Amino acid sequence: SVALRKYIINPFDRRYRAWEMFLVILVIYSAWISPFDLAFLDKKEGALRIFDNIVNGFFAIDIVLTFFVAYLDSQTYALVDDHKKIAVRYMSTWFILDVSSTVPFRSIILLCTHRKSEIGYKILGMLRLWRLRRVSSLFARLEKDIRFNYFWIRCTKLVWVTLFAVHCAGCFNYLIADRYPDPNKTWIGAVYPNFKSESMWVRYVTSLYWSIVTLTTTGYGDLHAENTREMVFAICYMLFNLGLTAYLIGNMTNLVVHWTGNTRDFRDKVTAASEFAKRNHLPAQIREQILSHICLDYKTRGLKQQDTLNCLPKAIRASISRHLFYPVVQNVHLFCGISHECLFQLVSEMEAEYFPPKEVVILQNEIPTNLYILVTGAVIIGKVVSGEMFGESGVLYNTPQSFTFQTSEISQMLRLDGSALLRTIHTNTQDGFIIMSNFYKVLFFPCMNY
Amino acid sequence: SVALRKYIINPFDRRYRAWEMFLVILVIYSAWISPFDLAFLDKKEGALRIFDNIVNGFFAIDIVLTFFVAYLDSQTYALVDDHKKIAVRYMSTWFILDVSSTVPFRSIILLCTHRKSEIGYKILGMLRLWRLRRVSSLFARLEKDIRFNYFWIRCTKLVWVTLFAVHCAGCFNYLIADRYPDPNKTWIGAVYPNFKSESMWVRYVTSLYWSIVTLTTTGYGDLHAENTREMVFAICYMLFNLGLTAYLIGNMTNLVVHWTGNTRDFRDKVTAASEFAKRNHLPAQIREQILSHICLDYKTRGLKQQDTLNCLPKAIRASISRHLFYPVVQNVHLFCGISHECLFQLVSEMEAEYFPPKEVVILQNEIPTNLYILVTGAVIIGKVVSGEMFGESGVLYNTPQSFTFQTSEISQMLRLDGSALLRTIHTNTQDGFIIMSNFYKVLFFPCMNY
Amino acid sequence: SVALRKYIINPFDRRYRAWEMFLVILVIYSAWISPFDLAFLDKKEGALRIFDNIVNGFFAIDIVLTFFVAYLDSQTYALVDDHKKIAVRYMSTWFILDVSSTVPFRSIILLCTHRKSEIGYKILGMLRLWRLRRVSSLFARLEKDIRFNYFWIRCTKLVWVTLFAVHCAGCFNYLIADRYPDPNKTWIGAVYPNFKSESMWVRYVTSLYWSIVTLTTTGYGDLHAENTREMVFAICYMLFNLGLTAYLIGNMTNLVVHWTGNTRDFRDKVTAASEFAKRNHLPAQIREQILSHICLDYKTRGLKQQDTLNCLPKAIRASISRHLFYPVVQNVHLFCGISHECLFQLVSEMEAEYFPPKEVVILQNEIPTNLYILVTGAVIIGKVVSGEMFGESGVLYNTPQSFTFQTSEISQMLRLDGSALLRTIHTNTQDGFIIMSNFYKVLFFPCMNY
Amino acid sequence: SVALRKYIINPFDRRYRAWEMFLVILVIYSAWISPFDLAFLDKKEGALRIFDNIVNGFFAIDIVLTFFVAYLDSQTYALVDDHKKIAVRYMSTWFILDVSSTVPFRSIILLCTHRKSEIGYKILGMLRLWRLRRVSSLFARLEKDIRFNYFWIRCTKLVWVTLFAVHCAGCFNYLIADRYPDPNKTWIGAVYPNFKSESMWVRYVTSLYWSIVTLTTTGYGDLHAENTREMVFAICYMLFNLGLTAYLIGNMTNLVVHWTGNTRDFRDKVTAASEFAKRNHLPAQIREQILSHICLDYKTRGLKQQDTLNCLPKAIRASISRHLFYPVVQNVHLFCGISHECLFQLVSEMEAEYFPPKEVVILQNEIPTNLYILVTGAVIIGKVVSGEMFGESGVLYNTPQSFTFQTSEISQMLRLDGSALLRTIHTNTQDGFIIMSNFYKVLFFPCMNY
Repeated sequence: SVALRKYIINPFDRRYRAWEMFLVILVIYSAWISPFDLAFLDKKEGALRIFDNIVNGFFAIDIVLTFFVAYLDSQTYALVDDHKKIAVRYMSTWFILDVSSTVPFRSIILLCTHRKSEIGYKILGMLRLWRLRRVSSLFARLEKDIRFNYFWIRCTKLVWVTLFAVHCAGCFNYLIADRYPDPNKTWIGAVYPNFKSESMWVRYVTSLYWSIVTLTTTGYGDLHAENTREMVFAICYMLFNLGLTAYLIGNMTNLVVHWTGNTRDFRDKVTAASEFAKRNHLPAQIREQILSHICLDYKTRGLKQQDTLNCLPKAIRASISRHLFYPVVQNVHLFCGISHECLFQLVSEMEAEYFPPKEVVILQNEIPTNLYILVTGAVIIGKVVSGEMFGESGVLYNTPQSFTFQTSEISQMLRLDGSALLRTIHTNTQDGFIIMSNFYKVLFFPCMNY
Repeated sequence: SVALRKYIINPFDRRYRAWEMFLVILVIYSAWISPFDLAFLDKKEGALRIFDNIVNGFFAIDIVLTFFVAYLDSQTYALVDDHKKIAVRYMSTWFILDVSSTVPFRSIILLCTHRKSEIGYKILGMLRLWRLRRVSSLFARLEKDIRFNYFWIRCTKLVWVTLFAVHCAGCFNYLIADRYPDPNKTWIGAVYPNFKSESMWVRYVTSLYWSIVTLTTTGYGDLHAENTREMVFAICYMLFNLGLTAYLIGNMTNLVVHWTGNTRDFRDKVTAASEFAKRNHLPAQIREQILSHICLDYKTRGLKQQDTLNCLPKAIRASISRHLFYPVVQNVHLFCGISHECLFQLVSEMEAEYFPPKEVVILQNEIPTNLYILVTGAVIIGKVVSGEMFGESGVLYNTPQSFTFQTSEISQMLRLDGSALLRTIHTNTQDGFIIMSNFYKVLFFPCMNY
Repeated sequence: SVALRKYIINPFDRRYRAWEMFLVILVIYSAWISPFDLAFLDKKEGALRIFDNIVNGFFAIDIVLTFFVAYLDSQTYALVDDHKKIAVRYMSTWFILDVSSTVPFRSIILLCTHRKSEIGYKILGMLRLWRLRRVSSLFARLEKDIRFNYFWIRCTKLVWVTLFAVHCAGCFNYLIADRYPDPNKTWIGAVYPNFKSESMWVRYVTSLYWSIVTLTTTGYGDLHAENTREMVFAICYMLFNLGLTAYLIGNMTNLVVHWTGNTRDFRDKVTAASEFAKRNHLPAQIREQILSHICLDYKTRGLKQQDTLNCLPKAIRASISRHLFYPVVQNVHLFCGISHECLFQLVSEMEAEYFPPKEVVILQNEIPTNLYILVTGAVIIGKVVSGEMFGESGVLYNTPQSFTFQTSEISQMLRLDGSALLRTIHTNTQDGFIIMSNFYKVLFFPCMNY
Repeated sequence: SVALRKYIINPFDRRYRAWEMFLVILVIYSAWISPFDLAFLDKKEGALRIFDNIVNGFFAIDIVLTFFVAYLDSQTYALVDDHKKIAVRYMSTWFILDVSSTVPFRSIILLCTHRKSEIGYKILGMLRLWRLRRVSSLFARLEKDIRFNYFWIRCTKLVWVTLFAVHCAGCFNYLIADRYPDPNKTWIGAVYPNFKSESMWVRYVTSLYWSIVTLTTTGYGDLHAENTREMVFAICYMLFNLGLTAYLIGNMTNLVVHWTGNTRDFRDKVTAASEFAKRNHLPAQIREQILSHICLDYKTRGLKQQDTLNCLPKAIRASISRHLFYPVVQNVHLFCGISHECLFQLVSEMEAEYFPPKEVVILQNEIPTNLYILVTGAVIIGKVVSGEMFGESGVLYNTPQSFTFQTSEISQMLRLDGSALLRTIHTNTQDGFIIMSNFYKVLFFPCMNY
């Protein structure tokens, strides 16, 4: 929606987002294939090598593209589309690492020296992992994206990290065994004496199996380190696993605590109420009312969200009230003929409440301090129908209610604090006069036109 | 209680609930027997096969029955008893899966092809597990059912899930070994060379043993994967276990945190109070009073539940107050002869408080802002007996109390805020006059009739 | 302190508590020795048997004693010393189990049948474990006992439970191996072929070693189940361990979260304040003031405890205020000559505050709404010494402060809300007049007698 | 900054802090080298021995130095520089242990007896570990140091403790094997029959490998206890590991819960708001406004920090307000010409608020109760520029706003509660008159000269 300079790409543009997503898929592919390639495929060239170079080509295009993508300034939250600023920012942060992880060192080395260099190869592998930051930042963004479920994003992340760790460790451990001078003194050679002639599937599954047996700390012991080199690797991997396991459990605990929070709160409330009723020997009827109120409260908590509303600014809250309540309040007899502004002010003061069936809203002989407007549902004893108001005589005339108002089914009502109404009447003299005359009309000539 | 159409069953009906419970038991039976049957009983037909078909019959009945069960609309919380709506809802949700898991594929296949099909058999097994959703929804309902203890429901669920996972994994792992071409290259064959001729008990216990050794990550290594097929299964099982273990620990942490919450809060409060007393060199007497107050507060927290009361609607709170306090307040001399409505209003404003023995309620020379009515217990120095009020001269006449009121034993009192009393006197002129005349009568002629 | 009937023991009596403690020690001894005896000592009689009977004797005495111990009624929190009620309560609860766990079945069986019965022996062992409820209830009491550190009580409990589980499992597992027909097909016999001729120390340590290797899920595999009987025991033990480990981790997490709570809150506050200062480019001086305030707030949180005070009843709070502040406030010139009651009321309204060095209390040109009385420390610029008041001209005369009041060292002050003072002056006309005249005396003749 | 007596060192002095840091490095060195030396280096003397004595020398110097270092009194938070008090405090606390851990027992024993004493040697090793308290207190200080990230300090501590435990256990376990009479009946000898002739690297890595395999409960079983002595050590180590693992997981859970707190709260708010909007069928425009408000609220939470400000004393808050808002408020036409004091008071009442783009600040026909001063950003419909005020006619003249004020970009505003302004006008009559005349000037001659 914001106009940017020519040849500058908006980072929130859909096509750019799709391009980023495509790169993330390439990153995941290359992150999985790199360790595998390193450990199991060192003999074979061909199709994989060509595909690898195509992937590299896409990342090279992205490096060029980044110079044309605007960025969000962290101070002003505005998009910066100045070519120079974009270039300075990129050059001073990730440019060098991005380039290093894209240059095909292997091909260059092969071209220059015509022999396979082990060390250059490994550096190449490590640099490719730099691209994983894209996956990490994708997850960070998804966690804050309201369209996705937080729980599943977090679980997916944890599963991905675990599987990737297992895969990498398996491949590296196989690599160590593969390069060890004495094949029978390796973790895999001790079990499969001629392991190098086994199929790739058997070797890969065995590696993964060792890796996961170690990660989950099962440690059967059928496959275990046989030489110092493997021991050092196993020590590092196990230390990493200790942290990873603690992190997994920590996250799971966090999610479980968060997840069960609502149910637990509800149970606590119900338990407290039951105990209170039991200890004070409350009659069964009151006990029933308390419990059904708490149950309904729990079920309809998605409808109320008072906390959510309270932290919104006043203007938004007013819009919401106006949208939800204005059509109802407009038709209430008491507010017949009053000005738009006054009605608007009253609507802003109202709050929606839900009552379960058989709950008493106003008791007989009570002088109510609140007015209620029935939106949906039914009030039996006071015989109120949708869109009607009750409780006004208590607020305006200070007389006790002559009968109990009790709901017959689940009912939504608008509650207006009596003092708010009185304040409005006092400040808006003209509208106040209309309200009071409306009130007396009903009080003294109740059988007239409604 | 709600009248439904003819031939429509209320889902909250006791008999329907019992039928559901019976089906859940059948589900549990078939969930346990299915994997066992698959792994250990593939040779034998007969009694089990017949019983299996009877179970299937019950589920077929339930499918038909579901078309006659009303459902609760999630929007209006009302029961829908319209035949068409019920049918549409069921057909569009679980009907297909329910039918697929009930059709006896195995018998049909046997009838048609006259040979045992491995694949059709396995699909059958998987479809039966669909029925487990009934167990899952039972637990979800029980967790919110106030008659059962949350902690035990949750523990039972966790234990059930763990045992079921162990059982299934054991059976499937045995199945893999049983079908492997070379019996000596299997996890069980490597230890028991002629394992197929062992008794079923030995084979089942050994399978369970391997399963639980892996689940708990003990991993002795006496039984371990010997071929690729077993390794792949073990990898999947261990990954699942990682999640399950984290889930178990997360749940346990959640329960422990919740469980120890009360004791911990109490300890924190006591520690804070002790520290405060120590650092400020408070005399031993005040220190004792503070600690005994906190201890009593902790012990009687089941009696007060102010938080529980506060979140109830006003009408229910009024009913509770009226039930608990009205008989006491009625007989207080100050409120002798005032109208029912006024007394009712005063009762709604009162709050029950508990005082430990030897606690000072009102200090000498203090002008109290609250009135107290003693319900149970005893106040020694001011010589107040149950049902009497004190502190009224401070509130109504603004005079300092001439002696200290101190409890001699654990006492329950009703506290009435002075300003609430004054407000009531001002608004209800007639009743206010009666209260004030009652007050002066006692003040000037204290030795008269009480 | 409470007088009980003759021959009735107060359960809170020190000597009775000591007796209970002595019994707990005996319980711990017998809980440890029972499984050990069962597994390792079945051949030997003698000293241990005699000691066991002495222990039983003590428990028999306790059963008789319990009929003479008063109990705390859960409803009224009063001690019940009625013989009949005590007897009824004990007979209907734990009497049968207490007796069953004390009767020396073994000796009776030996006397009657003259042969060692395996089954009677085992039931005996199980019944003795009933006594462990004493240990459990001791821990429950200690957790609520304010004299002991909650953290260490909880840790001790967890360590005790773990060690006891390890000991029991080790003994039972040895018992199974010991009774197995073929000694070479047992977990210990597979490693030590002639294990029955090894010393008891070797056998016990090996059992413990297996037990703990299994509990911690290390599972080396050097010792593992060899027959179905051992597998079933191992399955049960591992399932129990799963729960125990989750419980241990849950408790530890609970303690860590609780433990680090204070430091974490402090760090959060400091981080938030630093960030705020940085983003709003606040000058270094204000930033310093903010941080030193938060640091002091954290250090002196033991001195204030406003939350602790707020949840105490008004009478106790008044006693504390009177004890802490009265001697200081008495000597303030403004309150010279006013009545004891009025001063007392003012003291109740005061709150202690701590100011770090170089913190501004009242700014120049500000009209303060609070009065301050310096208790300890020093205020440099306004030259206030201990026991003096400042800020009163702003409150009473509505004039802006002519100079800044800034602390030079850590200072404790009493803060009195201006409106509370004005209210007191208005309600107590006589004392109000004295205060105002004191005020004008200082205002117009400041160089007079102080 | 505080002047201390001659020859007394300030503990917060930079040079002393550097010296302490240097000693901590020496402690870490000696804590790592001591167990290694004990297990692997018992034959060799020489360079290490000399270096060890130099380290001891530094600690001897520190003991002397401590008599000249002032300390912070825990009661008054003041530095104590009295020689006698410092000496008494040190002598009564850690002096003896410090001396014992520094005296070169080994050299003394060698000098006296001319033979290597095993026991004296071990006591020496244990005493050196006393020095670790310096590392522990360093971490405790760093956790509260606001310059370091809490998360990383805590992680470093946990990693350090884990690695140290692994190192120590590995060394001690090797020591046990090394001293065992029969080398083939040891954990290492069973695998490497001539392990004593292996290189130190192989022996050390194997020890570490065993140690970490046990700590992480992997327990491959390739290396395991072979004799009772090793079993006892393994039992102790595994019990310790159980506690350590629970502690690690507890800490990680704590950090994860704390870390994800902000994101989780944000997600909860967004979910609640979305649900509310969906259930109440709010139009897309209001929904957008709600979500963009919550998102901005989350992003700008570093700028507001209302909670942080609220817990600061009034004087600091006033300084902050004055620094941030005074320059803006000074130039607002309504406050033209009013006194410095009055303006200052108004500034203290103001609060900064942030509005996202397209948010409505004041609705048409609403009578606003707040005034706003635009600091940065833009308000389009009401055409307000930076430094201008709007909403004043509603507050001062009680007229509804004639048009909607809506932001066009992210805007910072100062909000002033209308009642606070009216109160200020009423109390400061002169300034109030200026404000009102400013107001009428704009109202009636809006096109004049500002």
